[in-house]
Amino acid sequence: MEPVRLSDLAVQLDAELIGDGDVMISGAAGLEHAGAGDITFVARGGLLEALARSSAAAVIVGADVEPDRPALRVKEPYQTFARILARVATPLDRIFPPGIHETAIIAEDAEIGTDVCFGPGSVIAAGCKVGNGVRLGANVVLEPDVVVGAGSVLYANAVVRERCTLGQRVILHPGCVIGADGFGYLPGPRGLEKIPQVGLVIIGDDVELGACTCVDRATTGVTEIKAGSKLDNMVQVGHNVVIGNHSVFSAQTGIAGSCEIGNGVTMGGQVGLGDHVKIGNGVKIGGKSGVHNDVPDGSAVFGYIALEARESMRIISAWRRLPEMVKTMAKLERDMKRLENGDKE
Amino acid sequence: MEPVRLSDLAVQLDAELIGDGDVMISGAAGLEHAGAGDITFVARGGLLEALARSSAAAVIVGADVEPDRPALRVKEPYQTFARILARVATPLDRIFPPGIHETAIIAEDAEIGTDVCFGPGSVIAAGCKVGNGVRLGANVVLEPDVVVGAGSVLYANAVVRERCTLGQRVILHPGCVIGADGFGYLPGPRGLEKIPQVGLVIIGDDVELGACTCVDRATTGVTEIKAGSKLDNMVQVGHNVVIGNHSVFSAQTGIAGSCEIGNGVTMGGQVGLGDHVKIGNGVKIGGKSGVHNDVPDGSAVFGYIALEARESMRIISAWRRLPEMVKTMAKLERDMKRLENGDKE
Amino acid sequence: MEPVRLSDLAVQLDAELIGDGDVMISGAAGLEHAGAGDITFVARGGLLEALARSSAAAVIVGADVEPDRPALRVKEPYQTFARILARVATPLDRIFPPGIHETAIIAEDAEIGTDVCFGPGSVIAAGCKVGNGVRLGANVVLEPDVVVGAGSVLYANAVVRERCTLGQRVILHPGCVIGADGFGYLPGPRGLEKIPQVGLVIIGDDVELGACTCVDRATTGVTEIKAGSKLDNMVQVGHNVVIGNHSVFSAQTGIAGSCEIGNGVTMGGQVGLGDHVKIGNGVKIGGKSGVHNDVPDGSAVFGYIALEARESMRIISAWRRLPEMVKTMAKLERDMKRLENGDKE
Repeated sequence: MEPVRLSDLAVQLDAELIGDGDVMISGAAGLEHAGAGDITFVARGGLLEALARSSAAAVIVGADVEPDRPALRVKEPYQTFARILARVATPLDRIFPPGIHETAIIAEDAEIGTDVCFGPGSVIAAGCKVGNGVRLGANVVLEPDVVVGAGSVLYANAVVRERCTLGQRVILHPGCVIGADGFGYLPGPRGLEKIPQVGLVIIGDDVELGACTCVDRATTGVTEIKAGSKLDNMVQVGHNVVIGNHSVFSAQTGIAGSCEIGNGVTMGGQVGLGDHVKIGNGVKIGGKSGVHNDVPDGSAVFGYIALEARESMRIISAWRRLPEMVKTMAKLERDMKRLENGDKE
Repeated sequence: MEPVRLSDLAVQLDAELIGDGDVMISGAAGLEHAGAGDITFVARGGLLEALARSSAAAVIVGADVEPDRPALRVKEPYQTFARILARVATPLDRIFPPGIHETAIIAEDAEIGTDVCFGPGSVIAAGCKVGNGVRLGANVVLEPDVVVGAGSVLYANAVVRERCTLGQRVILHPGCVIGADGFGYLPGPRGLEKIPQVGLVIIGDDVELGACTCVDRATTGVTEIKAGSKLDNMVQVGHNVVIGNHSVFSAQTGIAGSCEIGNGVTMGGQVGLGDHVKIGNGVKIGGKSGVHNDVPDGSAVFGYIALEARESMRIISAWRRLPEMVKTMAKLERDMKRLENGDKE
Repeated sequence: MEPVRLSDLAVQLDAELIGDGDVMISGAAGLEHAGAGDITFVARGGLLEALARSSAAAVIVGADVEPDRPALRVKEPYQTFARILARVATPLDRIFPPGIHETAIIAEDAEIGTDVCFGPGSVIAAGCKVGNGVRLGANVVLEPDVVVGAGSVLYANAVVRERCTLGQRVILHPGCVIGADGFGYLPGPRGLEKIPQVGLVIIGDDVELGACTCVDRATTGVTEIKAGSKLDNMVQVGHNVVIGNHSVFSAQTGIAGSCEIGNGVTMGGQVGLGDHVKIGNGVKIGGKSGVHNDVPDGSAVFGYIALEARESMRIISAWRRLPEMVKTMAKLERDMKRLENGDKE
């Protein structure tokens, strides 16, 4: 990051300057990692002790926090910090050197926008349409008739199968696979027969998909992830699933075929959804949950067989009483028998 | 799909024609996605209302369903529909252009069959034997001494490690990894020492393995998946596992080392098997189950610690009673104490 | 493996020779796979019957086992067997032919050690430093400014993102992804805004990471896996996680962001850790556990919500009593009511 005066940063970020504005900022890091020259952030007062131990040059604070060093005061400290992180990040031009590498393989009839970067060994097959400013890492493969919207970034070894479509500013991390065949078979005379998977995948604008995440093509019709949704690494999305806008799934979650997921849904890691499940808008699903039934808008669910989250937590708390309950119940049965026989202890 | 008269389709598919045989069919899609020109299918009468709302040109129905438009009547509507889907699918020749791409790297001593398609950047290392009609996508890697049977299809970025064998008509989806080292270490003086994994993987005919699915090579001997089995995306198969014929595992399932799985076994998603577990023929394992004990032929099991499925469902239903039971039991204990003291309420 | 006289093997392995030392050994295999010419091993007497059925030429035994054929007696039979397996393994020179393949792409300013093997289509981007004897498989991608320590082996299609560091003798299996962005977003006016992930990944010496395993880069600071740890296939390691020395995680386990894992920790498959969890040294976590709370040194935990392992096993055993307990409790309630009413049966 280009070194910048704290007072200039205050102006650029629309922040209130506290203390010495001449401090030079040359990096940004979290409280535990910040060194001299770095700006860090403290979202809540409880972290002031940790701040005192930090050698950060300056700190971003919210309304209620009194900093012990030069600072920027803003409404949302983490958001402001994230904006500075963007300056610290390795420029995309270093990861994706501008231009088309001489070893990239581009079909004659592919339509290629301006300012694209295609890495070594990347493959753009027949009929593809690649928008302006798209960056493809090394060995990325676009199978025939794929569409990639402007500004999308596909890291090394990502694969998009035939006829699938990515919107604008989509990010695919390394090893991500879009449009592999959905998983469908029918019993036939010689064993299982493959049901041809002739549908597509459509990925909306600003979707980000993690490393080795797989989104299967539809049997017929479309598997769709709508604009703004973010899926972590190794997430599985089955055929004909529809995921709404701005939904967020953590790593290793699996969505079986034909599920319909609303907008603003969050899922923890290793969640599993059975097929044809409908998840409403704004639903929160705890990590490792197994969801077999539809979940209405705004609910929070959790559990091996997911239930309303508070009920599930009560059940799980009660599990710990169970071994003792087995004994108590046996005692109650004995006592009951004795009482019924008219005995006293 | 080449447009075809419904009456001709009836002859080709050995179906009973109902209504206007002159309708032209140019596509096929599920009930929700079918448009004008498409043929769709209705497997059961309950879907007739949905059919009424569809603009499909024709419908495939079974014995008991009365169609509202030109139709083909067959015994197995979905199977017949799947046969039409095969005509709608993108021809493999478009995804794998015939011939060997000039950037493919082929070892001098590799034995290559006829009519193969090797994509850009694919690698066929020393000692490989590749059968007739094999298609390798872009950047597929066959390490030394790999055998690939005739008619197999390996999508982009799949990797087969040294000495492993694929049967005929095997399908590997993008990012699939065959023959990585099994996971084995022994404590040594300087920490964990790797147990060399010198065995193989043998994949039978007509096996299909999903995107990013990993099948580890055996420590010694063979990890084997027998003919006709189908594994979805991101399935893990540990070293020395044997999987029988026509078994079907859904996504993100993991099979630990040395398990023996029978024929016709089905597993839902995210199932986990402990090591050395034996699963009989025809077993069904519900999604997210954890299986630590052997399961006999024909059983259905389910659960965090898998039990016979009906027992597991009874247990899980009873979980919901548990918080209330904790209270009831406390009350019973109080009541019992009072009664034993000779009190009445 | 070069055939060797059993008596010579005894000297090389510091073993006691039992029986005919002139037997020639040309391979090594486990008890079930060993054929004529192979040496196998029997770790405990219970396997002597299986040995009797084996056609192995010789056997490695421990102190208490009386072999039925020529044998080597050692303290640790499996360790000794593993040392012989190393001779049976395909030489790395066959998988990674010495030298730099003509299709490898190497940035001008990359620093390359001696005796490296770079496979076809491998990419070494600007600023990379690759140590002596490093082997990169086909289509491996090192993004800019990556450091790979001497003797490391990266199998086909592995990807290391910019600025990440691998120690010496690190093994990455096919499809492994190091340094993809951590998963972090903040709500913004137009939806979720990406928190730039500007930190690194540092992988210590002798770490082995399985196929399709993903280790995310830190938001700021470092995601670290310390020397000697081994992660199986499809393990997810979130941003800012720190994993100590000699820890071992089985396949499909997921570690959420900012967890701190000690030394010598073992995890079964499909374990999930919530974020910011601290796991002490020597902890054992059973397969499929969900861990939401810190775990102190030396503990063994297990369960959907992980508890001390023995408590969890007692709870899980008690689950099976639960359906019957529901009935018993209803009966007790009825009996209690009757008694309170002064009735006898």
